[in-house]
Amino acid sequence: MATNQMWGGRFEKGNSADVVAFNASISFDQRLAKHDLEGSIAHAKMLTHTKILSETEGAQIVGGLEKLLKKLTTGELTFSDTFEDIHMNIEHLLQQEIGDVAGKLHTARSRNDQTATDMHLFMKDETVQIIALLDELLNVVVTKADANVNTLMAGYTHLQHAQPISYAHYLMAYYEMFTRDKQRFETAYHSTNQSPLGAAALAGTTFPIDREDSAQELGFAGNYQNSIDAVSDRDYLLDFLHAAATLMMHLSRFCEEIIQWNSYEFGYIEISDEFATGSSIMPQKKNPDVAELIRGKTGRVYGSLFSLLTTLKGLPLAYDKDLQEDKEGVFDTIDTVKACVSLFTEMLATIQVKSDKLAASLQDDFSNATELADYLADKGLPFRQAHQVVGKLVHYGIANNLPLQKMPLTQLQEFEPLIADDVYDVLDPENAVARRISLGSTGFEQVKYQIKKAQKKLASE
Amino acid sequence: MATNQMWGGRFEKGNSADVVAFNASISFDQRLAKHDLEGSIAHAKMLTHTKILSETEGAQIVGGLEKLLKKLTTGELTFSDTFEDIHMNIEHLLQQEIGDVAGKLHTARSRNDQTATDMHLFMKDETVQIIALLDELLNVVVTKADANVNTLMAGYTHLQHAQPISYAHYLMAYYEMFTRDKQRFETAYHSTNQSPLGAAALAGTTFPIDREDSAQELGFAGNYQNSIDAVSDRDYLLDFLHAAATLMMHLSRFCEEIIQWNSYEFGYIEISDEFATGSSIMPQKKNPDVAELIRGKTGRVYGSLFSLLTTLKGLPLAYDKDLQEDKEGVFDTIDTVKACVSLFTEMLATIQVKSDKLAASLQDDFSNATELADYLADKGLPFRQAHQVVGKLVHYGIANNLPLQKMPLTQLQEFEPLIADDVYDVLDPENAVARRISLGSTGFEQVKYQIKKAQKKLASE
Amino acid sequence: MATNQMWGGRFEKGNSADVVAFNASISFDQRLAKHDLEGSIAHAKMLTHTKILSETEGAQIVGGLEKLLKKLTTGELTFSDTFEDIHMNIEHLLQQEIGDVAGKLHTARSRNDQTATDMHLFMKDETVQIIALLDELLNVVVTKADANVNTLMAGYTHLQHAQPISYAHYLMAYYEMFTRDKQRFETAYHSTNQSPLGAAALAGTTFPIDREDSAQELGFAGNYQNSIDAVSDRDYLLDFLHAAATLMMHLSRFCEEIIQWNSYEFGYIEISDEFATGSSIMPQKKNPDVAELIRGKTGRVYGSLFSLLTTLKGLPLAYDKDLQEDKEGVFDTIDTVKACVSLFTEMLATIQVKSDKLAASLQDDFSNATELADYLADKGLPFRQAHQVVGKLVHYGIANNLPLQKMPLTQLQEFEPLIADDVYDVLDPENAVARRISLGSTGFEQVKYQIKKAQKKLASE
Amino acid sequence: MATNQMWGGRFEKGNSADVVAFNASISFDQRLAKHDLEGSIAHAKMLTHTKILSETEGAQIVGGLEKLLKKLTTGELTFSDTFEDIHMNIEHLLQQEIGDVAGKLHTARSRNDQTATDMHLFMKDETVQIIALLDELLNVVVTKADANVNTLMAGYTHLQHAQPISYAHYLMAYYEMFTRDKQRFETAYHSTNQSPLGAAALAGTTFPIDREDSAQELGFAGNYQNSIDAVSDRDYLLDFLHAAATLMMHLSRFCEEIIQWNSYEFGYIEISDEFATGSSIMPQKKNPDVAELIRGKTGRVYGSLFSLLTTLKGLPLAYDKDLQEDKEGVFDTIDTVKACVSLFTEMLATIQVKSDKLAASLQDDFSNATELADYLADKGLPFRQAHQVVGKLVHYGIANNLPLQKMPLTQLQEFEPLIADDVYDVLDPENAVARRISLGSTGFEQVKYQIKKAQKKLASE
Repeated sequence: MATNQMWGGRFEKGNSADVVAFNASISFDQRLAKHDLEGSIAHAKMLTHTKILSETEGAQIVGGLEKLLKKLTTGELTFSDTFEDIHMNIEHLLQQEIGDVAGKLHTARSRNDQTATDMHLFMKDETVQIIALLDELLNVVVTKADANVNTLMAGYTHLQHAQPISYAHYLMAYYEMFTRDKQRFETAYHSTNQSPLGAAALAGTTFPIDREDSAQELGFAGNYQNSIDAVSDRDYLLDFLHAAATLMMHLSRFCEEIIQWNSYEFGYIEISDEFATGSSIMPQKKNPDVAELIRGKTGRVYGSLFSLLTTLKGLPLAYDKDLQEDKEGVFDTIDTVKACVSLFTEMLATIQVKSDKLAASLQDDFSNATELADYLADKGLPFRQAHQVVGKLVHYGIANNLPLQKMPLTQLQEFEPLIADDVYDVLDPENAVARRISLGSTGFEQVKYQIKKAQKKLASE
Repeated sequence: MATNQMWGGRFEKGNSADVVAFNASISFDQRLAKHDLEGSIAHAKMLTHTKILSETEGAQIVGGLEKLLKKLTTGELTFSDTFEDIHMNIEHLLQQEIGDVAGKLHTARSRNDQTATDMHLFMKDETVQIIALLDELLNVVVTKADANVNTLMAGYTHLQHAQPISYAHYLMAYYEMFTRDKQRFETAYHSTNQSPLGAAALAGTTFPIDREDSAQELGFAGNYQNSIDAVSDRDYLLDFLHAAATLMMHLSRFCEEIIQWNSYEFGYIEISDEFATGSSIMPQKKNPDVAELIRGKTGRVYGSLFSLLTTLKGLPLAYDKDLQEDKEGVFDTIDTVKACVSLFTEMLATIQVKSDKLAASLQDDFSNATELADYLADKGLPFRQAHQVVGKLVHYGIANNLPLQKMPLTQLQEFEPLIADDVYDVLDPENAVARRISLGSTGFEQVKYQIKKAQKKLASE
Repeated sequence: MATNQMWGGRFEKGNSADVVAFNASISFDQRLAKHDLEGSIAHAKMLTHTKILSETEGAQIVGGLEKLLKKLTTGELTFSDTFEDIHMNIEHLLQQEIGDVAGKLHTARSRNDQTATDMHLFMKDETVQIIALLDELLNVVVTKADANVNTLMAGYTHLQHAQPISYAHYLMAYYEMFTRDKQRFETAYHSTNQSPLGAAALAGTTFPIDREDSAQELGFAGNYQNSIDAVSDRDYLLDFLHAAATLMMHLSRFCEEIIQWNSYEFGYIEISDEFATGSSIMPQKKNPDVAELIRGKTGRVYGSLFSLLTTLKGLPLAYDKDLQEDKEGVFDTIDTVKACVSLFTEMLATIQVKSDKLAASLQDDFSNATELADYLADKGLPFRQAHQVVGKLVHYGIANNLPLQKMPLTQLQEFEPLIADDVYDVLDPENAVARRISLGSTGFEQVKYQIKKAQKKLASE
Repeated sequence: MATNQMWGGRFEKGNSADVVAFNASISFDQRLAKHDLEGSIAHAKMLTHTKILSETEGAQIVGGLEKLLKKLTTGELTFSDTFEDIHMNIEHLLQQEIGDVAGKLHTARSRNDQTATDMHLFMKDETVQIIALLDELLNVVVTKADANVNTLMAGYTHLQHAQPISYAHYLMAYYEMFTRDKQRFETAYHSTNQSPLGAAALAGTTFPIDREDSAQELGFAGNYQNSIDAVSDRDYLLDFLHAAATLMMHLSRFCEEIIQWNSYEFGYIEISDEFATGSSIMPQKKNPDVAELIRGKTGRVYGSLFSLLTTLKGLPLAYDKDLQEDKEGVFDTIDTVKACVSLFTEMLATIQVKSDKLAASLQDDFSNATELADYLADKGLPFRQAHQVVGKLVHYGIANNLPLQKMPLTQLQEFEPLIADDVYDVLDPENAVARRISLGSTGFEQVKYQIKKAQKKLASE
């Protein structure tokens, strides 16, 4: 095979087909076609403004690129393996479209800053989409919470019933997490919002370009201030992958609980048929496949984060071919995160909570033990002593299958004479929730207040 | 062994010594002693303000805690394995100090929010220290850059000489990276700057506490708004580990280059004897151990990030004992990052660059080839064609061991008649750098401008 | 500070205290003291056999080393920070013990092969211990299985009841996993069982040493055949970490189930009080802390594997200081794995299974649906059709809260006339298990057969 | 959308198109088509032998499957998204081919054991191919070594010249690593070589199947002995990924050195034009893209290992949908490893070593310092003292730009009177290599011996 690559001048032999395939990125970087065209249009316009290109040349090139952009939208562009990447493909297509003047587009630009620009533009778009999906998720979480303020359930620690809480309060914990996730994607967006265009290969250029102009045309908030950094920086992708990994971690926690609640033993929810599947051999099963897959895909996103961290470790400046490995893991992460967030949102919106069963679980689970300890502390018993008394009562109750609220007063008083008739109010799970008034607590009023605040915030965005 | 644990009431048998040791965290969480005491002081003050404790009780408790804090500073406190964690140790010490009133400190608080508060306070302190170390590093980078604007070197891509650049420009690329690292730690600080105190076990409390009061006393910017989230959130640690992993990645890149430059073949730098070591068997060697260890320790920090992500995956709310595993990797990362940044700073400050050798490397390396291509493009040759011509010239030059600037004009013109006598100016590396004028480029003026900007920014912080 | 390091000859300035501390490994590699002494004894003996040392010199050195070994055992050796690693510490101690002849021990040896030898010897010892702990675990698994052949439970897929199985069969699945884990550690042992001693710095030595002799003395199965590989190889540590990570993954799965089974909702087991802990604020809780911590520590072991892989990536041959980072993660993994396996073994041995509750869960869970489908297939209905029929029956049963085995025959026949009176036998969970006869199935006879085989295998080891 | 899924009986609503797409694996698991057909053929034959199917039914099914296999080879099979995975696609195609009797194929089998069987068969094939590629690589390594026994170079530690070695010796270090890699893939093959077929959903089957028969038909060495383990085990994939990660680590180290040696400063090798690429903007460059990409792809393989480890962490038995995530990372790893090994092999085979330049680098690098120290030790100077003397000589030599072998004898003797005229022989790099005679050392005779041994071993395989 002859060296049809554009850099072939110095070389005697071309690459074998295997090597060409190995080096090529067109199979995946064609995903950047739109952004490559947009970046080139901005570059051509800047070259024209700065008179590096003549008005005629600029118009021809911009016209050609806009034609290609239209064709891309209508699916008329095809890319070929004979050009190693999206940039060479588009360069070729532009030449076919407008002839040799196409070559002038590459003045004062290298593939190093071109590919960096494409990726920055692409990531901005995708990040905005993910943030929008997170907004939908946040809305569903808050809507569900709003409808479930009075749904009681056990709050768990160590997967043990700990204290009665409002199901809305549980949901609002995820509101906090997903809000932080959104902020993390906003931070990643901010990292991405700098233009590398004009850095050229690594040293900048001798042409009198105007980077402010092209950055503004492309909607960037600013420019990279160092040309070496502009072509070697992948921090913005790490920020994105970090946001994605943390989000998937949160989703994996929520999915874990959905899977548990969907079990025969918990049985607290009914997943909509649309988000469950059956078994080829066991007709009774209703498998929470979507929740399981989301939980499972956490691994894939973690893997992509570690993949890029590994690739970057110990790489000398400025550009090394290793950096071409920055894309596939990120692309896969984008697809994974978008699918997971949107399906999770729909699944959550349609889950039915069996509030009766949840409430029933609070009747004999001793999750009101803390209430009793607090009650005794309130009556003057030092807290550590109160805790010991209640521990013994619980032990007795479990052994005799007798919840605290069903023990006769005399029996309770045998353990601690301070206990009086008012204890039964205290032991009621609903009262236990209602009496919590501290900021951020599960108390109904607090939960309503937090929901209101969230609704206001979401409405204003 | 009897159950001397404070939660023993319900249990018939105590834990074996092995289990106690396995569950215990005192070996590492004693590092939180200062913050545990500070958190308790703020809690006690708040309990007093809100009249949950009487003034006398509050004064006794705060007094006792302050005494312990003083003892801690002077090294008089000792912690014992018989209490599983720092909280139980301090509870015990307080009781010894002030008697049974100590028990009242635990009103309206659980170990879940207590340990979270300690860790948040600790991380704030440590993050501030790391940011200060990064400021020192940034100052050294800029100072070195300022002294080396006119030091020429080859800019590399693919570890190949690409184009002549200023060494200051190379250094300023790291200024950009480390500045982003600093921002990343500031983001982590911001994530950490919320108080979980008052979340109690997971549901908040029935006591009329004032979380704003304790948060303010402890210097937090705000409060967690959901008690479940407050005790289960580890995002702030992930943000920190992400900042640390990215910083180590940057350091690993710089160290890689220091190690290469320190080689016999590159020979561009002299590491100060203080930061190199010798060999027990090969007396001629001057090993860049510090740079190698920093590069190697990147693995350890990546490992800690992955470790915590793994631990968190799929964990149901609110608190699971798995979460105790959040500390050691973070502690190790703090120590690693602090040592690496401070030693790297000192090493960088004392490295001698052999500017003669660097400059000499530009005399026969064809790194001025781009200049020639730009020169031809400027003379009207389409860029792609110019590139081909230069490629052939380089090929000829390599084969005949003849740098472009040493080829006679007639010979150059055989390849392309457009070449004229003015080409030799263009081929001079210093001119190549000087002619770069674009924003962020390696041109001397640009580099000086960026250094000025950086100095101003650093001075204002 | 003056250069008191042994390699100082070439250097003008010594390292600062910070650098010395950063480079030093004595804080963790003192764990290799015993193996360093043993390696040195073997080396000295070999040097004597090959007449590189005189008999007198050899005797003096071996005598001195043996004295140090004895002192180490009795705790009389102390190591000092002023010597950077265990090797320099012991060299110093030996000199104090026997004077200048000590220096001859380092003939034909470098720290590179010395430290590699120490680590190989150490890993062999530790791996053997872990294998022994796995044998104990396997014994407990099989003993528990043997006692529970007739304990029925639901086999789960998607955390949904799938089909009735024997609890022994479930346990024996872990027997298979832990058996593979044991093999994986045996593979790691095999990788470790090659002596690097004699590779010197990286090139071998000019002294007429006999590597077979020292390898045999140290109990190695053979020698590294390439001196560069001998000092740079860390594969044996990766093999170990891989074995450890996979084992922890298995333990995390088992622990996840123990935690679920210990929940209020499952309630299938009672963890012995010795392996559970209580809550400081919620006296009713019995937290499966040990199981949670083991699950959580999975992250730490994964982290150590990833840490070493990262450190090794892209390192040039032969030895780089980065490789010093190979130890702490491995040491931590050893401690973690040993503690987890031994505590898990004890916890498993003392867990009480509530077989009544397990059996009861099979009465209304439709886990016998497959039996009905197989029954219909057996009666001639194509399997896919049989599956549809049963699906409808299950749907009907769930809607009407009516398990299959409680539906009257006429009702069953409305769905499919092929159903006859013999169906009730088929629907009985115990029969469902008993009728499974295929190799490796949950059928009682199969399970007994597998247990027998396992007992025989364990007894013979 | 109606539930066209085969498990739809129990469900009222079908999955949305999004959910179907999310759950579907046909986009990637069609890669298992051949093995799915082969597994089904073996299953059908076994069902016939055991008379579970009649001879006629068996013949029809086997005939149909073989027809599909032929069509697959000729590219006539097409798979459709409307069937979620490869198994349902083939079930459908078979039904089209032979009608309703196709349904009988699924007797005594579930998709759980079917998919496990496919993956085991597939991995066996792929692992064999990788082992064959490693054999080719080993042959090239040994051939290159054989041709370069007398090529001298500096052996490096800390990227510093340490001691002169034979280039063949350096290459043979990689022979050792790649040989271990091969063993690691053989171990993974061994883990894979067990048949899960017959485990059914998780509990085995009531049909009188003969698993020995189908295992043998498929070429498996044995059967999984526990049906739960058979469907949940992914250890064999972890073993494969571990082998792949370690191999990539080795390749990354070799590639790092190729990249360094290809630099202007080292300049020790010439990569064949076929394996290098040029620059679009810098015509003088010859970029080692293949080596860089291989080094970069290390991250991707590490990522896949950690992805699967993460996915498996904490998963309850037996099958969870998370496990569907086991494939894509493994497929990508297979493709990556195969491309990397085969391209690396070709690249290595065609690299030209510039032996003159390598040899020249030994003339003034003080890498013969150890020789001098050994020489002095041999003359009776204690080794530590000899080391100090040589250290001072090296320091003096560097300061005066005077290699040891060029210092006059009188000058040498000023540092140490024991030095005599015979020292110059000792200082010659070639002699330094030749005099190394220890097993595994760089001495020419040793290296030839190791090459012979390797050639014999490779020839016999």
